[in-house]
Amino acid sequence: MITARLLLHCPDKPGILAEITDFITVNKGNIVYLDQYVDRVENIFFMRIEWELDEFLIPREKIEDYFKTLFARKYDMHLRLYFSDIRPRMAIFVSKFSHCLYDMLARYTAGEWEVDIPLIISNHPDLKHIADRFGIPFYVFPVTKENKAEQERKELELLAEYNISCIVLARYMQVVSEKMIEAYPNRIINIHHSFLPAFVGAKPYHAAFARGVKIVGATSHYVTTELDAGPIIEQDVVRITHKDSVEELINKGKDLEKIVLSRAVRKHIERKILTYKNKTVIFN
Amino acid sequence: MITARLLLHCPDKPGILAEITDFITVNKGNIVYLDQYVDRVENIFFMRIEWELDEFLIPREKIEDYFKTLFARKYDMHLRLYFSDIRPRMAIFVSKFSHCLYDMLARYTAGEWEVDIPLIISNHPDLKHIADRFGIPFYVFPVTKENKAEQERKELELLAEYNISCIVLARYMQVVSEKMIEAYPNRIINIHHSFLPAFVGAKPYHAAFARGVKIVGATSHYVTTELDAGPIIEQDVVRITHKDSVEELINKGKDLEKIVLSRAVRKHIERKILTYKNKTVIFN
Amino acid sequence: MITARLLLHCPDKPGILAEITDFITVNKGNIVYLDQYVDRVENIFFMRIEWELDEFLIPREKIEDYFKTLFARKYDMHLRLYFSDIRPRMAIFVSKFSHCLYDMLARYTAGEWEVDIPLIISNHPDLKHIADRFGIPFYVFPVTKENKAEQERKELELLAEYNISCIVLARYMQVVSEKMIEAYPNRIINIHHSFLPAFVGAKPYHAAFARGVKIVGATSHYVTTELDAGPIIEQDVVRITHKDSVEELINKGKDLEKIVLSRAVRKHIERKILTYKNKTVIFN
Amino acid sequence: MITARLLLHCPDKPGILAEITDFITVNKGNIVYLDQYVDRVENIFFMRIEWELDEFLIPREKIEDYFKTLFARKYDMHLRLYFSDIRPRMAIFVSKFSHCLYDMLARYTAGEWEVDIPLIISNHPDLKHIADRFGIPFYVFPVTKENKAEQERKELELLAEYNISCIVLARYMQVVSEKMIEAYPNRIINIHHSFLPAFVGAKPYHAAFARGVKIVGATSHYVTTELDAGPIIEQDVVRITHKDSVEELINKGKDLEKIVLSRAVRKHIERKILTYKNKTVIFN
Repeated sequence: MITARLLLHCPDKPGILAEITDFITVNKGNIVYLDQYVDRVENIFFMRIEWELDEFLIPREKIEDYFKTLFARKYDMHLRLYFSDIRPRMAIFVSKFSHCLYDMLARYTAGEWEVDIPLIISNHPDLKHIADRFGIPFYVFPVTKENKAEQERKELELLAEYNISCIVLARYMQVVSEKMIEAYPNRIINIHHSFLPAFVGAKPYHAAFARGVKIVGATSHYVTTELDAGPIIEQDVVRITHKDSVEELINKGKDLEKIVLSRAVRKHIERKILTYKNKTVIFN
Repeated sequence: MITARLLLHCPDKPGILAEITDFITVNKGNIVYLDQYVDRVENIFFMRIEWELDEFLIPREKIEDYFKTLFARKYDMHLRLYFSDIRPRMAIFVSKFSHCLYDMLARYTAGEWEVDIPLIISNHPDLKHIADRFGIPFYVFPVTKENKAEQERKELELLAEYNISCIVLARYMQVVSEKMIEAYPNRIINIHHSFLPAFVGAKPYHAAFARGVKIVGATSHYVTTELDAGPIIEQDVVRITHKDSVEELINKGKDLEKIVLSRAVRKHIERKILTYKNKTVIFN
Repeated sequence: MITARLLLHCPDKPGILAEITDFITVNKGNIVYLDQYVDRVENIFFMRIEWELDEFLIPREKIEDYFKTLFARKYDMHLRLYFSDIRPRMAIFVSKFSHCLYDMLARYTAGEWEVDIPLIISNHPDLKHIADRFGIPFYVFPVTKENKAEQERKELELLAEYNISCIVLARYMQVVSEKMIEAYPNRIINIHHSFLPAFVGAKPYHAAFARGVKIVGATSHYVTTELDAGPIIEQDVVRITHKDSVEELINKGKDLEKIVLSRAVRKHIERKILTYKNKTVIFN
Repeated sequence: MITARLLLHCPDKPGILAEITDFITVNKGNIVYLDQYVDRVENIFFMRIEWELDEFLIPREKIEDYFKTLFARKYDMHLRLYFSDIRPRMAIFVSKFSHCLYDMLARYTAGEWEVDIPLIISNHPDLKHIADRFGIPFYVFPVTKENKAEQERKELELLAEYNISCIVLARYMQVVSEKMIEAYPNRIINIHHSFLPAFVGAKPYHAAFARGVKIVGATSHYVTTELDAGPIIEQDVVRITHKDSVEELINKGKDLEKIVLSRAVRKHIERKILTYKNKTVIFN
């Protein structure tokens, strides 16, 4: 059953929720999901609502128009509409670590995710053999200080050619430029191998070891122009002891990274994330 | 600001949510909380909604009546209405372990909970000194096979006298009879010292130790007539190793028990729990 | 640097630890790992000790003999000796779920584990494509009530042919017979998709859903003849809510299963597990 | 049974462990606990060993002397000796939050901890009623910029008078001066209400809320002269969502703080912590 998925936020006012659910119901849309939340500090209303289209009276291609006309201006509302039969097209960026890539491709191949992954991009050739195993095109763009702008321009062309709608940095060990971030606003997901905001930047496991923490973490977030400071989607942690060497931290961290990244990617694919003021609202 | 808190469930039909929020809004109730959930397997709609009463057009004492008349029959709806200025009156039952009792009284005294705790009941005199420290009446009802029915009858009288609306069994080491359970349906909260349904019954830490589990847990649930089988409110776990003796399990478990129990009690006090078919819906 | 790894247990007596470390040191073995534990209830001494062989005075092939002669009888000691350059040879048994298999093969291929995986056995052909991707022989033995004994006999022959030392049941949906268990005592690792001993047997996620638990788990254990009752190696849990359907439990569970199984397999490969009276001692 | 507890560390050399356990055994000390760990990066040997004194041949008052003479110089060893019948004397410092204080006093009163708590010090009178309930002297030293040095001098006198061996800052909202830290090196335990090193300093829950993290934590550490940067003893975390207000973070955090602090205090009391280079070794 094809569904429409509407995500929106606007200043909270009485009656918004009733008006929207009423509008969908009156037009014979069977609501199969509704989650809403009011940020009472900022006074913002957030909602995700999903309804079946088969008997819905408004033609699919006009739905967005109707919502914009009826509600967007009236309530100063930002809204985004998705359809369940249009799968996100996702590019994976990698460098040399394979654990997140394997995990994502296993889920993808097993049909766990409603997504298409038509290409993998890397700044190193090391993981080509994995892309080959899974039959996915693998493009290498080695990056140096000098060629970075040029390589990213080519990458953007390639992404456009493949009609890519979102990017996952699966331990891509290269800072992404402002230009690419602007091309994919809140649509580049990164996995950082620490419990942000602790240990921003390179070598967080070494830093965690040096500080003697008893827990290490991983953080998945949308990429913004400030390093490791974008809206956090998901975090998790694992307990360590003084007996764990840096290598052991890295090993334990790998398991965290792939789980945390996959949870974030899944929420993104299912259209369950709204971003607002550098924070995320995650619907259930 | 005094608020009304309405919890309800009914077979899911289009328009319920819109109708109720609309009704409250039209009558000038400012909605400050709304959480709803549809069980799509059983097709049941659950909602908790809270609104401010100061400008609400319907007089406080007539609100329940209005909702029953307007919605309850129409939608085959079960509903319960609470007011934020009427605090639950809670009795604590204890035996010989003090950790949960101390934790609850500390929260109560510090004003963490919107509740009144006018009395403590025990089948042993051991913890009277704690009740004294906190200035709360402490009643001892020693229970034997012979006098159990009689003692519970007296306890029920005492609870009625104190106008008690809910009971917390804070490691009360005595099975509560059917009669008391019927007097307080889904209003007796127990803490069981295992991750239910593992290790039902007595001595769960000994059983966990014998089985060699790597994690132990605690479970807070409403008491029903089947032992340790009532609707689960909250659970949590802690990791153990082969090095932990039974005594160490008991120690680690105590910390779990008090946290798990306090989370459950808090949810209950805040009227955020609905029970349905031996399961709980916990609102955020 | 090649090391010897000695695991042992015996009734605790004064001086054992000193005597063994002294013996290794005197013979110029550089101890790189030592972990010991005394079960003071059962009065059993457990130890894992590892030392470098390059300057060790006792020839490699005679080490076991020496320890047996010098200590085993004297202390009524059970001991097992391994060498770091002899990798376990592991067979993976699967049915239709791919998540654990992918996870194991990704770790294996990435060199995370010091193990050889020369074959995969299944009772269904469904996952052959994965074995092919990773270039590992895949054998199908469909099992029915009638042919079970015969098929297992063939499997045992094949395992012997491949010189397999341990077996991982990676969501193998078939009870393994006593004969196979006896052939691989404490060397068959299973992943059960519940927090044992809760929800033994089939369909644990359905049972967890029906009971309304707030946490689900996974358990990795050695297989014994009693179903789901062998020594537990590793467990972990994930929090759920009333909003999670059975399908969502299954999804969340999959991530748990693969992490829990991989931790157990890793401990096994690293020779860090001792079993004693249906429980495990896990060295750090 | 009275035991001796010896904690030591020194550069790792072959034979230390054997020599010490042998020495104790030969002198008829029955070893009831032994945990050791070698930091193979720094090449440091750490050990905690505990043995019964009743048949030990060396008189109690000479034990430290023997170990110093026999081992300390030879191995460049730092060692500390404790006896199980000499309880630490602990002062608690508080300000206005009661949750950690209540939790500690409940454990103390229930006999969970082998410690004496002869006094409570505060910079505010607010919690005096709690000290009174538990019958513990409560001293108020209001601190201003001007009188801080003078007040701390008086506090130190009082601590000396009470023969205090360690201090717990149970949400004491005042930076402790260098002088007091020097008087109690690695013997002042603080609870910081964040997952250090994230959110050092004041108002960490507000900072966590602003950053939009999905997990908050608490950290217990020894106090050093650098703010919130001393050796970490224990950390733990709790999951939050976008729905949690700052107030809710503070509430969830309180439960964490008291558990994390109590675990750290317990490890300290049991003499299971060694500090080395701004990190802790925590024995099981």
